[in-house]
Amino acid sequence: MNTNLQDYSHKRFNILTGEWVLVSPHRAKRPWQGQNEAVANENRPAHDPECYLCAGNTRINGEKNPDYKDAFVFTNDFAALQTTSPVFSVNEGLFKAESEQGICKVICFSPDHSKSLADMAVEDITKVVKTWQAEYDLLGANEAINYVQIFENKGAVMGCSNPHPHGQIWSQSTLPNEVEKKDLHQKTYYDTHKSSLLGDYLKQELEAHERIIYQNDHFVVLTPFWAVWPFETMIVPKYNYTNISELSDAESIAFADAISKITKAYDALFQVSFPYSSGIHQAPTNGQDNSHWHWHMSFYPPLLRSATVKKFMVGYEMFGSPQRDITAEQAADRLRALVV
Amino acid sequence: MNTNLQDYSHKRFNILTGEWVLVSPHRAKRPWQGQNEAVANENRPAHDPECYLCAGNTRINGEKNPDYKDAFVFTNDFAALQTTSPVFSVNEGLFKAESEQGICKVICFSPDHSKSLADMAVEDITKVVKTWQAEYDLLGANEAINYVQIFENKGAVMGCSNPHPHGQIWSQSTLPNEVEKKDLHQKTYYDTHKSSLLGDYLKQELEAHERIIYQNDHFVVLTPFWAVWPFETMIVPKYNYTNISELSDAESIAFADAISKITKAYDALFQVSFPYSSGIHQAPTNGQDNSHWHWHMSFYPPLLRSATVKKFMVGYEMFGSPQRDITAEQAADRLRALVV
Ligand SMILES: O=P(O)(O)O[C@H]1O[C@H](CO)[C@@H](O)[C@H](O)[C@H]1O
Ligand SMILES: O=P(O)(O)O[C@H]1O[C@H](CO)[C@@H](O)[C@H](O)[C@H]1O
Repeated sequence: MNTNLQDYSHKRFNILTGEWVLVSPHRAKRPWQGQNEAVANENRPAHDPECYLCAGNTRINGEKNPDYKDAFVFTNDFAALQTTSPVFSVNEGLFKAESEQGICKVICFSPDHSKSLADMAVEDITKVVKTWQAEYDLLGANEAINYVQIFENKGAVMGCSNPHPHGQIWSQSTLPNEVEKKDLHQKTYYDTHKSSLLGDYLKQELEAHERIIYQNDHFVVLTPFWAVWPFETMIVPKYNYTNISELSDAESIAFADAISKITKAYDALFQVSFPYSSGIHQAPTNGQDNSHWHWHMSFYPPLLRSATVKKFMVGYEMFGSPQRDITAEQAADRLRALVV
Repeated sequence: MNTNLQDYSHKRFNILTGEWVLVSPHRAKRPWQGQNEAVANENRPAHDPECYLCAGNTRINGEKNPDYKDAFVFTNDFAALQTTSPVFSVNEGLFKAESEQGICKVICFSPDHSKSLADMAVEDITKVVKTWQAEYDLLGANEAINYVQIFENKGAVMGCSNPHPHGQIWSQSTLPNEVEKKDLHQKTYYDTHKSSLLGDYLKQELEAHERIIYQNDHFVVLTPFWAVWPFETMIVPKYNYTNISELSDAESIAFADAISKITKAYDALFQVSFPYSSGIHQAPTNGQDNSHWHWHMSFYPPLLRSATVKKFMVGYEMFGSPQRDITAEQAADRLRALVV
């Protein structure tokens, strides 16, 4: 490893999006005098009668949740996308807009209000994985849907309005910005090299062995070379699958194991239920040849140096490029030590 | 105006970056059960002996601030970029990095600790504008500097660690991501149409008159058609200047007037000192022909529906595209009514 990368300002290239992140390792020691986040380490009950996601409770639209035992999926009561909205487009000079159809769902990971993925057994996380697979297939089969975005916002600081363990699935007719970028860069590479961009990257990471946090038979957890968030990580399948539904049963369990390992390490880092947004980027369901896709799951956690001090992606980051102080290698070292 | 844009999900195209924003107007009425921000409407003294930005006080590195009367600039004590760091590059297969040189400065807008731009006289804001111009020229003349990013983070919720009115100027050897995108799209348009992309857009906005918030002889304040943040706005010069230093004295005052008008309207919106990140995008200082650039200033404020409820750009936004509920036209209507 070039030690300059640990000492001096530089930018790193994200091979998937084609964008850069500014890294300033020398700056990690500046004092913090800004906003502190509240820590919400309350003890939650296994069932909360006020929670609209708990089993048997009534949601805001009057619907009653079933007495579910594992993962439970329903259509978002305030969906950002709908299939019933009209198809239209605006092309008035430099004003350009297109209607967007879609289906937004909520997925409860467990009936247990007190748990998060980090507290759940691998067996129960596997049920979540199976549900993601079923939803990817179901939504993807819909003519109007060409892309399925699975994600989770965890923690109040990440805009999560309910601590009940849950994620979301927004599916839609066109590819969102980030997916469009990754589609392009993977395709360009695949067409040139006849191999998976992320697969080849993974080989290089396994050789370098500087950013690997954990691996099992089928998955690697690492901090990508171009990580933006202080403790950003990625779960990458060792085999070049284009989407999560291609996983065998054994591989699905291995994926659940990888999720379990990294979320537990996160919780151990600052002794707090670790906030993050996570998401799975995978092949569009547009019926085209998507062999260039190598699916992966990413975690974007905001905390920087304690349970209460987060990294702000503001001013320079909004107008210029994302910026970080602690390097990807330093973050990997800390997380690796916490995997049990 | 196509009324579908006020009623149904659609995506709008940002002509400057080439990216899309998802708009879900029907969703504006969903209830909020998530995190509330603290309101910091304390009465601050004009001079705070504990503040490292106040005149005459000593900063963390032992330097003493002069007894400044107007805008005051110094090099950031914890600069993310430095000119003394070595030049290197990493090109190991799919690991790609480049060293980055630069200069980071802090600019105090006023010695008065209790003020923000919204509280300052146009005359005093004009002094800030003059200082920005001088810094753009000075930094831009440096061989190692090819781009100058002027920005402000205002409010604790925007990662601002000190309420003393101040902004920052990060200048560097290469173009950051966002600038790269805007450079490309402006250049492509300019080469084809022999006119400024933003200038032509502005003409169309002035005709449509749906998103204009305020204008004076030389500047227009508007919510761009593709606005991402709930109350995002843009200050656009009526004449196709490439950078802020091209402004005449009268135009500099008009720019200060536009800043004054929009920041005052912001403060009136939720009766709170309105948090935001603002930034000026302008021509690189790389010695190339930058006639395609039309400089502009943007405000990205996070608040959504009150002084305590902000919009979270998380999960879907991080993995997909930015998303908003209230439309740009609704936001413009509300802000326009508050300009005095
Ligand atoms: O330099 P400051 O004001 O301490 O820091 C603030 O602005 C910087 C530039 O936008 C960001 O990188 C930091 O995350 C933010 O807290
Ligand atoms: O749908 P929720 O959980 O109420 O809302 C949360 O996630 C959405 C999707 O990332 C965001 O658009 C919202 O800003 C955020 O608060």
